[in-house]
Amino acid sequence: MSMTSTNDDVVALARRLLACPSVTPATGEVFAALEAMLVPRGFTVDRFTVGEAPDGPVENLLAWRTTGAGPHFAFAGHLDVVPPGAGWTSDPFAPEIRGDLLYGRGAVDMKGSIAAFVAALDALPDDLPGTISLIITGDEEGPATYGTMALMDRMQARDLRPNLCLVGEPTSAKRLGDVVKIGRRGSVNMWIRVTGSQGHVAYPHLADNPIPKLVRILTAIEAEVLDEGTDWFQPSNIEITDLEVGNVAHNVIPAAATARISIRFNDQHSGAALIERIKGIAAVEGGSVEAKISGESFLTAPGAFSDLVSGAIRDVTGVETELSTTGGTSDARFLSRICPVVEFGLNNATMHKLDEAVAVQDLRDLVRIYALVVERALG
Amino acid sequence: MSMTSTNDDVVALARRLLACPSVTPATGEVFAALEAMLVPRGFTVDRFTVGEAPDGPVENLLAWRTTGAGPHFAFAGHLDVVPPGAGWTSDPFAPEIRGDLLYGRGAVDMKGSIAAFVAALDALPDDLPGTISLIITGDEEGPATYGTMALMDRMQARDLRPNLCLVGEPTSAKRLGDVVKIGRRGSVNMWIRVTGSQGHVAYPHLADNPIPKLVRILTAIEAEVLDEGTDWFQPSNIEITDLEVGNVAHNVIPAAATARISIRFNDQHSGAALIERIKGIAAVEGGSVEAKISGESFLTAPGAFSDLVSGAIRDVTGVETELSTTGGTSDARFLSRICPVVEFGLNNATMHKLDEAVAVQDLRDLVRIYALVVERALG
Repeated sequence: MSMTSTNDDVVALARRLLACPSVTPATGEVFAALEAMLVPRGFTVDRFTVGEAPDGPVENLLAWRTTGAGPHFAFAGHLDVVPPGAGWTSDPFAPEIRGDLLYGRGAVDMKGSIAAFVAALDALPDDLPGTISLIITGDEEGPATYGTMALMDRMQARDLRPNLCLVGEPTSAKRLGDVVKIGRRGSVNMWIRVTGSQGHVAYPHLADNPIPKLVRILTAIEAEVLDEGTDWFQPSNIEITDLEVGNVAHNVIPAAATARISIRFNDQHSGAALIERIKGIAAVEGGSVEAKISGESFLTAPGAFSDLVSGAIRDVTGVETELSTTGGTSDARFLSRICPVVEFGLNNATMHKLDEAVAVQDLRDLVRIYALVVERALG
Repeated sequence: MSMTSTNDDVVALARRLLACPSVTPATGEVFAALEAMLVPRGFTVDRFTVGEAPDGPVENLLAWRTTGAGPHFAFAGHLDVVPPGAGWTSDPFAPEIRGDLLYGRGAVDMKGSIAAFVAALDALPDDLPGTISLIITGDEEGPATYGTMALMDRMQARDLRPNLCLVGEPTSAKRLGDVVKIGRRGSVNMWIRVTGSQGHVAYPHLADNPIPKLVRILTAIEAEVLDEGTDWFQPSNIEITDLEVGNVAHNVIPAAATARISIRFNDQHSGAALIERIKGIAAVEGGSVEAKISGESFLTAPGAFSDLVSGAIRDVTGVETELSTTGGTSDARFLSRICPVVEFGLNNATMHKLDEAVAVQDLRDLVRIYALVVERALG
């Protein structure tokens, strides 16, 4: 086996990343490990730290390599991982192969995918024209305020404009390649507050109970049908996720009541329009609404890019891919602003769980798929 | 002025009780002070302490005096007081007269009334036949588990059976005697709990959100009309007093949701029947109900006893009395099980407030009213 890093096996690359503890936000060591992989492969690496408390500082890595004129293909991902939790069979940051699986926190979400993309670089033809970049944040599992968005600013400042972007999130469900995400729903949380006037339950005419008003607001919200779904999206959905009054006195009518709702919405809506809609419902009962948009929805309409990815999957594995927009948000919600984005990566069965693990064969297949995707995207 | 205690002025008696700190549950000193007033007046005094944590132990005082055959008139009250709170003009347990008012915690609720009843004893004819008793607890402002109910057990054990009972709670609103309570609403608190199945808001089909179910239960409860009121009672009323989910994670559908309701009900209902009614509503959505009845409603139908009390008020003060059933619960809810009960006492404007105070003239008038009531009840 060659001692040069450009001939590393994908398993060795993955182990190197998994061995660096990087609970979100990731810093230092794991970025240095990735930088050490990319520099010998001809990439310019720009590591930078931005942001202030409470959502920062955050470390990011932008890397790019241009080989003649051609399209720009970007791979996006993150080196931070969720906390391992207690109860692992082996040390979550001491990667270990048992049977056919490589265990370690981040094995599928998503150090394994990053390792596969690095290994895929070694499988590309030398004369492939165009630009390849890696957009890697240390804060995807956290607030994400200074992560991928900061990387996009950095790219713009360097005049790096991807034509296509693949996000390496673990989208596969039962078999590698069975699911590719071409969009994501948006997400917005709202806090609905109704204030009244405190009083004694024995004298309700002297008080103004906010709870029945909140109940009426929530009844109206539950009756809302946002849409019936689209060809590519399931119906938008509202969940009431919390109720809070905090009244410990049994004989007291409280002065205020709050509910929290979470809306996952498809491309028929914008976060701002939904906030106005809920504000209108709450206003009927004198309620006020505060809101935080976690992400707008996006859709990369099925077409050339998704065909390219599903074709590569089919050629390597024989698996027919389902194009999906289900699931939570990802950093693709940011990247979709600058170019078509598709998400494809490893099997998500163990993501965020104890004993997170990736099948070694999946890693090797993913290298071949990623290589085909890049080759066809730039070729 | 005579030095014998039986000629004490009502103000001196009230000051003596007010000078004993007795934040609920009252113990020791304040009971000794009352005992020292009653023994010289010919009463047998039975002081006893009952109950265990958390609602006990509680100190009580039962006193009685029998002068020949005749009816049994009972006066009921409490020596405990609510905490004074900070900000009094003078020490809440150092009674002080300023202007026309006597200040001190318990001045109207209800050491002042007890002092007035003791002073009234001195104004009775010597040959009045029958039994007079005092049913005095140290725990009316607290849980009341081992207070008046324990005193009723004690009376039963001693074969003391009142024919009429006057509770000295401060019922007067604007002028002494303007309001007498002939009943009280009952009170029951219920906790309605709905359990579901926790999950991620992005995958609601894999979860079972309990909050919409709770909202539907509360909507149905809000639509309930318990009654339209009666000649003597305002309509029964349901208040939702608390909502609790306690879900800090914005993206999680919670596993359970709880609401608390408080029902104040008139004599058209029993606590048990109301619990069954709410259980039936909750069961439609799979909700469960826990309940605690604080007290059943009672009504001493207007008639001889209330006429006797309002007549005595008219004769002393010229005030026309309104018979009322409004307000919170009192120990009359227990005593009404054994005999007709009416509540009448001082002005409640400052009860439970800072600088609680009683008008000296009200104290003197109350002595005369109480004396007339006892004389006519036994005569």
